Amino acid sequence: MELTYTGKTKDVYELPNGNYLLQFKDDVTGVDGVFDPGANTVGLTIEGAGRAGLKLTKYFFERLNEKGIPTHYIDADIAQATMTVKPAEVFGKGLEVICRYRAVGSFLRRYGLYAEEGQALDAFVEVTLKDDGRGDPPISEDALDMLGILSKEEYQILKDLTQQIAGIVKDELAKKGIELYDIKFEFGRTGENRQIVLIDEISGGNMRAYKDGEYVEPLELEKMFL
Amino acid sequence: MELTYTGKTKDVYELPNGNYLLQFKDDVTGVDGVFDPGANTVGLTIEGAGRAGLKLTKYFFERLNEKGIPTHYIDADIAQATMTVKPAEVFGKGLEVICRYRAVGSFLRRYGLYAEEGQALDAFVEVTLKDDGRGDPPISEDALDMLGILSKEEYQILKDLTQQIAGIVKDELAKKGIELYDIKFEFGRTGENRQIVLIDEISGGNMRAYKDGEYVEPLELEKMFL
Repeated sequence: MELTYTGKTKDVYELPNGNYLLQFKDDVTGVDGVFDPGANTVGLTIEGAGRAGLKLTKYFFERLNEKGIPTHYIDADIAQATMTVKPAEVFGKGLEVICRYRAVGSFLRRYGLYAEEGQALDAFVEVTLKDDGRGDPPISEDALDMLGILSKEEYQILKDLTQQIAGIVKDELAKKGIELYDIKFEFGRTGENRQIVLIDEISGGNMRAYKDGEYVEPLELEKMFL
Repeated sequence: MELTYTGKTKDVYELPNGNYLLQFKDDVTGVDGVFDPGANTVGLTIEGAGRAGLKLTKYFFERLNEKGIPTHYIDADIAQATMTVKPAEVFGKGLEVICRYRAVGSFLRRYGLYAEEGQALDAFVEVTLKDDGRGDPPISEDALDMLGILSKEEYQILKDLTQQIAGIVKDELAKKGIELYDIKFEFGRTGENRQIVLIDEISGGNMRAYKDGEYVEPLELEKMFL
């Protein structure tokens, strides 16, 4: 088993059969010791953070697989904090796809002239480039196509999958009285037919969730939800 | 004749017949006394800057009108540095529509991970919000539609017009050996049928132009071209 990538919150190993093992770490992103899921640096280590993220990821990926939504997930071992996944190739050097139900965060910072804080948005989808040095800039369908990152047909599939998956997560959270404000996903291509599948994780660090008008801290979400 | 708006580089007066008079000023945008067409503040006053911008605008708007491209232009008086235009309503609180033939400026700052400086782009169109306080953020077709600024049908018209107009300006400049790298336009709706028309101006301050590999300063463009 060979370490192929050391990420901020996960290490990635290649398995002899061609699949990959994701080792969830207790390192979380943040700045100056304060946890911030949107940050691009590891801020601190929180005992149990890796397992908490994996438990939610396992739960949601299994719901998605039941519903026939394609993902890279094979199985998970909570005790070891590992997840086995199919190999997948990211788009370009990596994209994040965001689905928004309320106007907060970077959406509001950009479009505050036209939207009020917390205003309902209709499962609005946008794509950002994973590029720490350039502040993860948003990118349009036309630019993704022109720069050879994603074709127009793939963009439509990505957008449809994003709205479907976000809708499933939203409904699941709603059963526990939790409201999903926004969520970000990563996708990749897998197999010979280059099928587009959801990759990475779905955990508190990927979303903004509120309960009774109060923001739910990413690590609280697992305790509150599962 | 009533002053209805004082802009950074133009004053706008309403005429008794419902049309508008744009008074081109010698104030140009910039920072710390240095001319910068992309800046959001008036940086300095340059004798003749208003007339130079108007001469180019008159030239290009008359070429566009000959070709049947809808604009707000009626006529211009170079001696008075004024242009008479039809009334038009901007989209939302104002948009800028950019057409790019080479990767420079904010495109490169955002997408430098995927594009090299000066790389050819295929008349790539993007829209930014006019919002000085938020740094004129780029906005997608979906967001423009969702926020009620521009419908999907209007977006397509805007994009097509932008590529047509930029192509005409590019060809005109090429006749004098000048290469157009990028250009920004403003559009509005006019008349009872809310037709989409080009508004504002087309001058050195709206574009990046190069001759023999050298950047052409905005105020040099009028002397070099006309």
